[in-house]
Amino acid sequence: MRILLINPNTSVSVTEKIAALARAVAGDGVEFHAVTGGFGAPYIASRAAAVVAAHAALDALTQHAAGCDAVHLACFGDPGVLALREQSAVPVVGMAEASIQEACRHAGRFSIVTGGAAWGPMLREYVASLGLSGRLASVRTVAATGDRIARDPDAAMAELTAACIACASDDRADAVILGGAGLAGLASRIQPGLSAPLICSMEAGTRAAVAAARASGLDSGGDRAASAR
Amino acid sequence: MRILLINPNTSVSVTEKIAALARAVAGDGVEFHAVTGGFGAPYIASRAAAVVAAHAALDALTQHAAGCDAVHLACFGDPGVLALREQSAVPVVGMAEASIQEACRHAGRFSIVTGGAAWGPMLREYVASLGLSGRLASVRTVAATGDRIARDPDAAMAELTAACIACASDDRADAVILGGAGLAGLASRIQPGLSAPLICSMEAGTRAAVAAARASGLDSGGDRAASAR
Amino acid sequence: MRILLINPNTSVSVTEKIAALARAVAGDGVEFHAVTGGFGAPYIASRAAAVVAAHAALDALTQHAAGCDAVHLACFGDPGVLALREQSAVPVVGMAEASIQEACRHAGRFSIVTGGAAWGPMLREYVASLGLSGRLASVRTVAATGDRIARDPDAAMAELTAACIACASDDRADAVILGGAGLAGLASRIQPGLSAPLICSMEAGTRAAVAAARASGLDSGGDRAASAR
Amino acid sequence: MRILLINPNTSVSVTEKIAALARAVAGDGVEFHAVTGGFGAPYIASRAAAVVAAHAALDALTQHAAGCDAVHLACFGDPGVLALREQSAVPVVGMAEASIQEACRHAGRFSIVTGGAAWGPMLREYVASLGLSGRLASVRTVAATGDRIARDPDAAMAELTAACIACASDDRADAVILGGAGLAGLASRIQPGLSAPLICSMEAGTRAAVAAARASGLDSGGDRAASAR
Amino acid sequence: MRILLINPNTSVSVTEKIAALARAVAGDGVEFHAVTGGFGAPYIASRAAAVVAAHAALDALTQHAAGCDAVHLACFGDPGVLALREQSAVPVVGMAEASIQEACRHAGRFSIVTGGAAWGPMLREYVASLGLSGRLASVRTVAATGDRIARDPDAAMAELTAACIACASDDRADAVILGGAGLAGLASRIQPGLSAPLICSMEAGTRAAVAAARASGLDSGGDRAASAR
Amino acid sequence: MRILLINPNTSVSVTEKIAALARAVAGDGVEFHAVTGGFGAPYIASRAAAVVAAHAALDALTQHAAGCDAVHLACFGDPGVLALREQSAVPVVGMAEASIQEACRHAGRFSIVTGGAAWGPMLREYVASLGLSGRLASVRTVAATGDRIARDPDAAMAELTAACIACASDDRADAVILGGAGLAGLASRIQPGLSAPLICSMEAGTRAAVAAARASGLDSGGDRAASAR
Repeated sequence: MRILLINPNTSVSVTEKIAALARAVAGDGVEFHAVTGGFGAPYIASRAAAVVAAHAALDALTQHAAGCDAVHLACFGDPGVLALREQSAVPVVGMAEASIQEACRHAGRFSIVTGGAAWGPMLREYVASLGLSGRLASVRTVAATGDRIARDPDAAMAELTAACIACASDDRADAVILGGAGLAGLASRIQPGLSAPLICSMEAGTRAAVAAARASGLDSGGDRAASAR
Repeated sequence: MRILLINPNTSVSVTEKIAALARAVAGDGVEFHAVTGGFGAPYIASRAAAVVAAHAALDALTQHAAGCDAVHLACFGDPGVLALREQSAVPVVGMAEASIQEACRHAGRFSIVTGGAAWGPMLREYVASLGLSGRLASVRTVAATGDRIARDPDAAMAELTAACIACASDDRADAVILGGAGLAGLASRIQPGLSAPLICSMEAGTRAAVAAARASGLDSGGDRAASAR
Repeated sequence: MRILLINPNTSVSVTEKIAALARAVAGDGVEFHAVTGGFGAPYIASRAAAVVAAHAALDALTQHAAGCDAVHLACFGDPGVLALREQSAVPVVGMAEASIQEACRHAGRFSIVTGGAAWGPMLREYVASLGLSGRLASVRTVAATGDRIARDPDAAMAELTAACIACASDDRADAVILGGAGLAGLASRIQPGLSAPLICSMEAGTRAAVAAARASGLDSGGDRAASAR
Repeated sequence: MRILLINPNTSVSVTEKIAALARAVAGDGVEFHAVTGGFGAPYIASRAAAVVAAHAALDALTQHAAGCDAVHLACFGDPGVLALREQSAVPVVGMAEASIQEACRHAGRFSIVTGGAAWGPMLREYVASLGLSGRLASVRTVAATGDRIARDPDAAMAELTAACIACASDDRADAVILGGAGLAGLASRIQPGLSAPLICSMEAGTRAAVAAARASGLDSGGDRAASAR
Repeated sequence: MRILLINPNTSVSVTEKIAALARAVAGDGVEFHAVTGGFGAPYIASRAAAVVAAHAALDALTQHAAGCDAVHLACFGDPGVLALREQSAVPVVGMAEASIQEACRHAGRFSIVTGGAAWGPMLREYVASLGLSGRLASVRTVAATGDRIARDPDAAMAELTAACIACASDDRADAVILGGAGLAGLASRIQPGLSAPLICSMEAGTRAAVAAARASGLDSGGDRAASAR
Repeated sequence: MRILLINPNTSVSVTEKIAALARAVAGDGVEFHAVTGGFGAPYIASRAAAVVAAHAALDALTQHAAGCDAVHLACFGDPGVLALREQSAVPVVGMAEASIQEACRHAGRFSIVTGGAAWGPMLREYVASLGLSGRLASVRTVAATGDRIARDPDAAMAELTAACIACASDDRADAVILGGAGLAGLASRIQPGLSAPLICSMEAGTRAAVAAARASGLDSGGDRAASAR
């Protein structure tokens, strides 16, 4: 089983980090082909950067999808995911959508914590486009963007932890998503101080991509997906 | 890894059939503890039967959840799923919700085909409670209820196939769910004649339950879920 | 005219209290057949208890509906009300729905005050299922559950009054519902200190049940309801 | 108990007819003060006529509300009802809202049948303003406006009956409302041929007005409503 | 090009003021025929006054529309605007709708600041009727009604400015509308202290009316609009 | 006054055609700087092409916005419009949003007719993102995409006219939008056979861009927009 892991920003270090985490989560028997965006911003922190990242993700799909059983678009916000699905013969999993679906398996409402203030309205709109605004308790952003958090996670832990706790206590979220490739792996450090379950978006996206690759194989031996296009 | 598979109606034959399918889908390394509803109707085909099934599912959880890593409530319509989640220390997957989430991974809108006219409004209301009415293309029901289809699938194939095709062509669904424990395993027979992907609700629920059991283990070694209650 | 009054929890004392209030509100010419849940919790304060109460209410309907002109399901939250309507030849009034409809006759938005924290999300979801989320100003719960309030109302009056006032002032509700069989009769004590009208859910449910019994008789002499099933 | 019955169009014959029906529905012990709009159209069949009728209804309230326990605004569409509530010390019942609430007591969805094509979009918007679009199966209008139907009901019976049947069969409504003062009393003639319950808007409005007058008296002895303004 | 400017309250001084502003905004080549409501309140600050104003606006349309290319209903809240459109052969612009559309051209959400507490719920309902509740950040009202602000703007500037700032900072509005004929012209004084763009409703309505008059002429030479009725 | 007119596809012939129409609509005193997408598809007829066009539009803004008073993004579907607004110091008008707002000035509901089947779901989603799904009567697409229609309009006239008529008669739209740069100018030929007003998206977008450029100048002399970023 082979999964195309697309990091649509241009930071090779982020790609390497999330590929390592994906391999640890998926375990044996799953191969990841990890690619980095060919152009655009080193981290997505504006609508303009997300527009360019969607284009870079499409290019990555075109060049690297052959031979893969599923695609994981690993940018929280899923830039261009509907266009990738339109063009792809195999399932495409967006990291944000996968996290939100996992959160919805818990009763009630969920919150999102991520880095970079511009993501607040962008993520509220994305949740609305999924039809799930009624289940969104809150989006809370910390000032540091994901790339800065990736470079120096310790500097952001206090603020991230406080935001997660505020989601559970003030906003009454039943589950919290720690969103963003740059924040991958931090959830397990924050969870101990939090009463609500905390979902790492990179782990949730990986689980969903593995399940999608399996579904793709089980349903059809690969024939259906192709013929359905 | 051990999954509690709850069939909340009282038909042991349905329990045996879906347990076999679950084992085939999940493969090695996943154990299923399959239980049948202790009271209620042999098949759920009314609001009243669904109310009783929710109670029976709760009873099954109380008696059998110990030692399981996840719960799969295998009745399309997920009777009592929020109450089970409230009472459970491990994730609870509803067969309908899991199928709908899998369908939403495809762009656009989905339809549901199932047996028994009473399910039409009940499923529309359930989709609305998930916040996803905007993505529902249609619910189409055939006259035969799921238990009758389970006993004599060949008699229902023509009508089920026609309903699936109508979802894709008339209702313009981008994906179709074949819902119900009694219809488990029929999707692969109907798919060849259908342009849109067809999701077997029992397979989708099983995949989601396996993923949830894995998520449960990965996040916490089992400690978090317990402490979060 | 005869109304079946169902208390779906197992507290006979609550049944007696609400039956007395129903008779006082309805006046002469209306007979009440009051029944208590045959199994389940002494008071409904969780999703699990509500699931069991729905089953108990269905059982009560099956055993006691003969000869009645309407049914009043007197648990704020209306567990199983749609299933009861499905099975009943005469109108079924839910206490919560009746209170909310009465509140909606006032311009603008309404709030709900009840006992037991678990009811917060459950009631928000119920209002949403009625299509009325846009008119809900807030749900405020006090810590004491309804059975405790019923046993010692004086101990809860200060907190209930403060919650009602907060609904009107902070949440800008145009009407407030004091919800729950256990809180029946307290509204008249709280109203004097409140600028917005305060609706007692038991009184509102009784009025609606009487009106429904009348509608049932007026429309048809009893024939239509039967033939419409 | 005294109810102000406002017919906001200028047809005295309609006022007399609905007053007679109200007295028959309410029975002894309820007095009706029936008034006719002082200016405007003989029947409301456009947005412009509804705007003028709202003004006429407000004038009627100002002149005639003293000494009444409730107000029944007897034009299906409830022109100006929120403004009347704002100005009134006693509850104001709109005929359409009361009918819709009665329909919602039945599970599922309702349809409306009335006279005059202009009412189609106006009533859809009104249902939306009540938050209940999700429960509206359809609005079907016949060509004849209500005043013409009131003058010669036999000429309209075939078309009205066909519209009601289409609501139940084609639009799958669980209940149908026959709306409009001019159509008052026709429901009992159409019901026998219809599988779904048919609600006469004038009867439903009268029942709700009587219940509101009772609620008004029970809650407060008249003091609360006044002090709440 | 000639625009009918309707002030539906009875204050001639307000009419004169907004006509002067309209002429300044529109520049040469646009003639305004400004009319004052023939009956009703000197300023609209209640639902009842809005109902009467809608009637007065209709009367003004009937008497003065001949020879005009568009109509501007210059009361923030647009009383009766749908009825005016129903009756008018040329486009009808409502001041509130035009302002809201201009605000929506900015990304994200908008707030409204106006005078008179009664407008809060009325404007929330109006925004909902336009389908735009999801984009409304807040409505904030100051105590002084529009006519008092028009007579002594300096007395209200501090409170208006604080409300606008609170919309941008606390409610996170991306644009703010200063609504009301009585507040026309004040936006330019408040804008310098505000980070978000501030829209004067009278200017926005005038721009939209001019554009509508142009559209009316371009589409059809006047023939289409007439034939489309 | 100078408007940047962005055609985000790569067809220079389309750019020239819409620039000519924009100049005819705007008349004297408005200068247009028309630019063509630097990369991507010759016409946008898929989600993937729309993603690339959004990037091309952003690039065009970056290179050409200096000295302009407003931006008109002239692709029906407005690819990237929120990102352009984020980056632009002057107002950005999307052709589709402007057309929809103009349609909403008519009472009731609107339909859209355009070329290319892929636009159906894309436009439904875009209308939803504007909060206006409740006012959308239908989207109807003809098989020919916009570039083919632009090259040979006569071949498409019958199908386009039939679609417009079906929107008004079958879907009961109160206004119809003829959407797409490639269809610019055809509305006036179709209007004579249509009872509902037909809006040319290119004309509506041009009118809105001119109004926005005026608003930009009137509010601030250019200072506000800059300082608000």
